[in-house]
Amino acid sequence: MKELKEKIKREGHAIGDDIVKVDSFLNHQIDVEFMDKIGEEFYKRFQNKKVDKILTIEASGIAIGMCVAKYFKVPLVFAKKNESKNLDKDTYNTEVFSFTKNKNYAVKVSKKYITENENILIVDDFLANGKAALGLIDIVEQANAKVAGIGIVIEKAFQPGGAELREKGIQLESLAIIKRIENGEVFY
Amino acid sequence: MKELKEKIKREGHAIGDDIVKVDSFLNHQIDVEFMDKIGEEFYKRFQNKKVDKILTIEASGIAIGMCVAKYFKVPLVFAKKNESKNLDKDTYNTEVFSFTKNKNYAVKVSKKYITENENILIVDDFLANGKAALGLIDIVEQANAKVAGIGIVIEKAFQPGGAELREKGIQLESLAIIKRIENGEVFY
Repeated sequence: MKELKEKIKREGHAIGDDIVKVDSFLNHQIDVEFMDKIGEEFYKRFQNKKVDKILTIEASGIAIGMCVAKYFKVPLVFAKKNESKNLDKDTYNTEVFSFTKNKNYAVKVSKKYITENENILIVDDFLANGKAALGLIDIVEQANAKVAGIGIVIEKAFQPGGAELREKGIQLESLAIIKRIENGEVFY
Repeated sequence: MKELKEKIKREGHAIGDDIVKVDSFLNHQIDVEFMDKIGEEFYKRFQNKKVDKILTIEASGIAIGMCVAKYFKVPLVFAKKNESKNLDKDTYNTEVFSFTKNKNYAVKVSKKYITENENILIVDDFLANGKAALGLIDIVEQANAKVAGIGIVIEKAFQPGGAELREKGIQLESLAIIKRIENGEVFY
């Protein structure tokens, strides 16, 4: 998505060789009009699929999920992160390893909101090691529902998540795929 | 907001004498079309005010904030919760007491995204003891910005937050004000 790459160039901040901060429009301050275009773009890329619900993970997936769900005219469900081991009995639970925090955290979705045979489109802001996406897939599978596809705003192709998801045969659409980050610059 | 009260009646679950679960449409699964109406309603109630930005707190405020920001055509900023004491130097920080978790948690907003003299409309899903709203007000004041108003989806009038905010002379608009919860029923 050309407009996204230009926005990352204009507003993003590349740090070291693996971080790009986009908190001016994507995950702290949100450019709501631009986010709507992201929702529309995901709709174009997945409109051939049957999609009953959008699934994302709190917190930074929610804004994206809202805009995608609007175009598909379906509900959004966001998975909750919970460090407690005392999860409700009526939730699907999985664990996601966070490289930032260097620990596992629990992720849960109420069984009421993903049900058998539903077609679930997963969306998130970033894809790097893919642990969050794999956790959401695990939840969809526990529900005997189907993954319709995965929509990612920014994929870091130099980390293994994207390759792993594509090997599973899932339709993965990343709107900006970063090949490398070098000297404060992002290369596509 | 009549439609909201009816939706709480139809889909909400009152538990004990102080909890109403609305996770089927407001804070776990989100009814995106209905949420848009909530955004429009807040716009109607605050359109007389100058609003430069919408401010909320992750995670459940984000969906509401997106819909309000859309109508005002301004950016959304969401405050981040962080249990770490090691906050960036370039953030406004405050502490919010959580009655659910019985502890303080840190809340931060980058100084880049709320600036002097901006008019900030604060929105959130629930208002009970008002600690989150007071934390957001504290952040706006640290920035020398102004609170344009506070928009709440569900206020529990039997807890002290609403009274405290109104005493400050802030325009507080709650779309559903619950007087009491009794025998699994919500009374307005």
